[in-house]
Amino acid sequence: MVEPPAASLLTLADIRAAHARIAPFVHRTPILTSSSLDALLGARLFFKCENFQKVGAFKARGAHNAVMSLDEAQARRGVVTHSSGNHGAAVALAARNRGIAAFVVMPETAAAVKKAAVARYGAQVTLCAATLAARESTAQRIMNATGAHFVHPYNDVRVMAGQGTTALELLEDQPDLDVIVCPVGGGGHLGGVAVAAKALSGRIRVVGAEPALADDARRSLRSGTIVAAGDPPTICDGLRSSLGDRSFALIRAHVDDIVTAREETIITAMRLVWEILKILIEPSAAVAVAVLLERALPISAQRVGVILSGGNVDLDRLPW
Amino acid sequence: MVEPPAASLLTLADIRAAHARIAPFVHRTPILTSSSLDALLGARLFFKCENFQKVGAFKARGAHNAVMSLDEAQARRGVVTHSSGNHGAAVALAARNRGIAAFVVMPETAAAVKKAAVARYGAQVTLCAATLAARESTAQRIMNATGAHFVHPYNDVRVMAGQGTTALELLEDQPDLDVIVCPVGGGGHLGGVAVAAKALSGRIRVVGAEPALADDARRSLRSGTIVAAGDPPTICDGLRSSLGDRSFALIRAHVDDIVTAREETIITAMRLVWEILKILIEPSAAVAVAVLLERALPISAQRVGVILSGGNVDLDRLPW
Repeated sequence: MVEPPAASLLTLADIRAAHARIAPFVHRTPILTSSSLDALLGARLFFKCENFQKVGAFKARGAHNAVMSLDEAQARRGVVTHSSGNHGAAVALAARNRGIAAFVVMPETAAAVKKAAVARYGAQVTLCAATLAARESTAQRIMNATGAHFVHPYNDVRVMAGQGTTALELLEDQPDLDVIVCPVGGGGHLGGVAVAAKALSGRIRVVGAEPALADDARRSLRSGTIVAAGDPPTICDGLRSSLGDRSFALIRAHVDDIVTAREETIITAMRLVWEILKILIEPSAAVAVAVLLERALPISAQRVGVILSGGNVDLDRLPW
Repeated sequence: MVEPPAASLLTLADIRAAHARIAPFVHRTPILTSSSLDALLGARLFFKCENFQKVGAFKARGAHNAVMSLDEAQARRGVVTHSSGNHGAAVALAARNRGIAAFVVMPETAAAVKKAAVARYGAQVTLCAATLAARESTAQRIMNATGAHFVHPYNDVRVMAGQGTTALELLEDQPDLDVIVCPVGGGGHLGGVAVAAKALSGRIRVVGAEPALADDARRSLRSGTIVAAGDPPTICDGLRSSLGDRSFALIRAHVDDIVTAREETIITAMRLVWEILKILIEPSAAVAVAVLLERALPISAQRVGVILSGGNVDLDRLPW
């Protein structure tokens, strides 16, 4: 495999353009702080609340940038994607905002609340087996039948440009961060965030947070080649994907480290954020707090941006 | 019973003074909005998020105003109160912030999370039977033994002045509200809010929201005399108190109506806010949304301030 050169893939200018393009459709999310959590972790934490984002996750950013970038001829035939949930809802909403059709392929195992959200935004949902192969072949079949344009959940520079706007806003509000911690699944969010952060700050560190049960991104970064995720049994249903070649190129070029947390710590972190910040976050977001609880990276007395990537949970199936 | 004249009890000036006094110790809480909930209810809703307040509830306001108002000689002997939880935690925190002792009497039935919070803030907790009589006699015994100053959870003008600062902030941020909906238990919050709101706006309506199972405040307002709450079996553990003579005087003078919601609607409203706003609120806060779901007051196309009074819930005992 020949990797695309990272520098030409995605730039700060792309991310700024994405920010302007999506601004009418997504929230500028707030940053919360907590003296209790600061005391617990011995650092100054700034929580970027993408759980308050449209569709309840950062995915609204990338999906809107991709869908709003389409030319009229492309857009007219609709868009298709596959997703465990948040990206599917995001594409559905973006398509509705553009007034075009959306087709979303979801694994049968996706959380009920996520399936319902996608349908509520007006997309046509097709269920398939919970493997990447099944998702891709099902999406391909729909593309062939409809001519709809495919919007990959992460390995797409338009999507990554949109996700990077999270860091743009975070660093506009808090320019002096020492480090940003961002969950990593397929790597689109982490890649986009890293491009923006490194372009905006000469000294900032960007660290990915990953479930130890799904540490393929960490192993990919260490080995220099993409390690497949398999179907890892982590509670973080948004972080089960393998990296793509484009997201991996950005991560290799710009991310300082990827660290992991155990499942039990992820659940502890999720509950801690609920109880102290009084906000709902999903397990895939909690991993960014869990790595701090496990002291997986040095943050003592530092200013730490923590990206709480989403808040879509099934309240009938809480993990405690 | 001779009621105190409402106009001399509490004024906007008292509430402004309270706001300045407590500002170093409490949050100015954010206001959230939701296009989904606006569409569902056919109105423009502004949620004042006292669930994000210190100790997780508006009670931090009144307790800090009372404790910070004490003269040195009074303060030195500490403070005592009785509370199902949030007011106890608030008095404990205020006392810690002033550097004095706090004694908190709590019913054995109080939520574990609330007992733990009070203890965490450094107060000495005394458990008693879950009746008002037991709470009052236990608090009296502690006052006799220690000389500590009693801070009533609601029937105290200093406390009500503090609680009224919620409305001060809400109307500073959103001056054009048509109506404010506020939960009512002992009436300290609703009374303070009503004084502030009516002084700041000539046309605003102030409506109390109460569980139908604990509709003593509604019946009191209708009959013109305080109806005792008994020990109502509502899920809203913060709203089981009877009105006091001072809180009732303010409510009679300034509140337009008190409306009720059923327990099942309160639970539905709580879950709806969790799922859509992605924030934790407790049942005693959810009643303010539940009365809107039940169409218990006219709000069509209006601008509605909804006071989400607290967010302290036991995550091991959710009502769904």
